Amino acid sequence: MISGATRLFAIIADPIAQVRTPQAMNAYFQAAGADAIMVPIHVPATDLAIVMAGLRSTRNFGGMVVTVPHKAAVVGYCDELGPAARAVGAANTVRRTAEGALVGDMFDGAGFLGGLRAQGHDPAGARVLLLGAGGAAAAIAVALAGAGVQELVIANRTRAKAEAIAVRVRAAHPDARVRVADADPAGYGLVVNATSLGLRMSDPLPIDAERLDPGTIVAEVVMKPERTPLLARAQQRGCVIHYGRHMLEAQVRLIGDFLLGTGPHA
Amino acid sequence: MISGATRLFAIIADPIAQVRTPQAMNAYFQAAGADAIMVPIHVPATDLAIVMAGLRSTRNFGGMVVTVPHKAAVVGYCDELGPAARAVGAANTVRRTAEGALVGDMFDGAGFLGGLRAQGHDPAGARVLLLGAGGAAAAIAVALAGAGVQELVIANRTRAKAEAIAVRVRAAHPDARVRVADADPAGYGLVVNATSLGLRMSDPLPIDAERLDPGTIVAEVVMKPERTPLLARAQQRGCVIHYGRHMLEAQVRLIGDFLLGTGPHA
Repeated sequence: MISGATRLFAIIADPIAQVRTPQAMNAYFQAAGADAIMVPIHVPATDLAIVMAGLRSTRNFGGMVVTVPHKAAVVGYCDELGPAARAVGAANTVRRTAEGALVGDMFDGAGFLGGLRAQGHDPAGARVLLLGAGGAAAAIAVALAGAGVQELVIANRTRAKAEAIAVRVRAAHPDARVRVADADPAGYGLVVNATSLGLRMSDPLPIDAERLDPGTIVAEVVMKPERTPLLARAQQRGCVIHYGRHMLEAQVRLIGDFLLGTGPHA
Repeated sequence: MISGATRLFAIIADPIAQVRTPQAMNAYFQAAGADAIMVPIHVPATDLAIVMAGLRSTRNFGGMVVTVPHKAAVVGYCDELGPAARAVGAANTVRRTAEGALVGDMFDGAGFLGGLRAQGHDPAGARVLLLGAGGAAAAIAVALAGAGVQELVIANRTRAKAEAIAVRVRAAHPDARVRVADADPAGYGLVVNATSLGLRMSDPLPIDAERLDPGTIVAEVVMKPERTPLLARAQQRGCVIHYGRHMLEAQVRLIGDFLLGTGPHA
């Protein structure tokens, strides 16, 4: 029940209608007994500055989840950044302190790792192929490197973008083995699809699935459809499949604790 | 259930914790089957401009209820004003059109009138004493003059503010009989308390209640406590009492229709 005393939170995106974060976060707030509500805020990139200024000045505004296309730009409006946001150069969550400061952090990587571990998959020691070089891929790359994988290989159609992520990974984790290569999935313990291929059922697969080894864990970042063509094909090959929603589920707790100021990041 | 497709509405105020508008409007939205939610936005007067700019740029923002201290200032951010807002020089509701225009209107007066009529009290032909000269008093004065009262007398400690309202009433309703006088309640059919005296139980009464005629309707704008010391004393004198909440109840429908674009103002 929203009252005059309710703390306001938002998810900021363009487009917005498809986001499922309000449902997930409001369930979390309710379970936590917090008098807080998350609402959608639809803002195109051109108007991010003015909306950020308004939200910063809103006294009962507690913070927001940030998604496409604002994750990199929002860093410019933060007074402070957590280590993952600094490493990636993007934030998917911004907390507003009682004093009106904006603190950004990036939970895509921690959420992906948390989701893997919750399903019993620890990537430590594994050879990992990461497909894609967008914002989610960068966050996942940094998190996987920090989780002690044996080797991280990044594959992307535009190779320079993959190289840029490798640079970020080495800056955050100087001892990590990371390199850029082609999207050949043979010989990996974990293959992560962080491209947007799979959002539409008509999309081509991001890899040649015939080259997947049986037993490889194949993980999606795409949440809808839950069972992407890649996952369906991987399962036929005898791979272990891991849904995109596991990442969201793990992030809900991380983000909720951060926004409410109840977690280890508070 | 709030989703990414939910239209966002707000009540904007300082302080905010005491407002009851979110509960009332969200019940109205739900009953209307609208995928819409109203949240509190706490903004001090110094930051109204920046927050208004942000809300104007928020594509799924449908509008807001405006209360203390923003009702007069918000007029400066509207692209268009309804007749009551123009007459009063203040707005308590701002609708955002699909094109991003802000349309302000003032429903305090229409709400007060609607509440009176819903309780079976038509002020047409009555002599009316209005106590106070703030924003609510101005809106109620214009509405009462438009409802055909026999005479409207405005009483306020600072007489010049009462005179200013009388000027507005005459501008909107050139044929209305309106004057400024002392707060002596004898001889009136309707006495309206639009001062804030009564918010605290320790407040002095706004009139000498011993001068109330039995049978006079004594109406409050103050909503909490519901039964103010004035209403309690008036009832002892044999007056008919009328609660502040009747005004809110009537406004909820007027404001809801305006914000959703379903009413006669749409």
